[in-house]
Amino acid sequence: MENTKDITVRFGQRVKTLRLQLGLSQEAFADKCGLDRTYISGIERGVRNPTLEVIAVIADGLGIGLDAMFRF
Amino acid sequence: MENTKDITVRFGQRVKTLRLQLGLSQEAFADKCGLDRTYISGIERGVRNPTLEVIAVIADGLGIGLDAMFRF
Repeated sequence: MENTKDITVRFGQRVKTLRLQLGLSQEAFADKCGLDRTYISGIERGVRNPTLEVIAVIADGLGIGLDAMFRF
Repeated sequence: MENTKDITVRFGQRVKTLRLQLGLSQEAFADKCGLDRTYISGIERGVRNPTLEVIAVIADGLGIGLDAMFRF
């Protein structure tokens, strides 16, 4: 079950890394995605379990495809 | 918003394609994943919006990484 081990934590770290590469604050990124800043914060900390549709919105906000999103 | 366009439909088609490549019925695949057959059916038809944790379980059941899961 390699994929499921701490998947929300690993995904959150990936989102944070990519967001910082874009030089965006959590608030600016949340605005870009149309999501709440506290929700982005929860995702980055791995305490949220986002749905496929939200994951797609985040990947769009980061300007990358879903496959690249999961290269970690 | 390329990633979000019918994402649940595209994801479902991908799951179905990969499941059939493994020669598994929906029921056999659902058992392998520890999910309900009707849930797998809903995912393949694009009417379910699975969470990250469920997506990871499905990728494990298919024996591939999450990045490969989203190569569509």
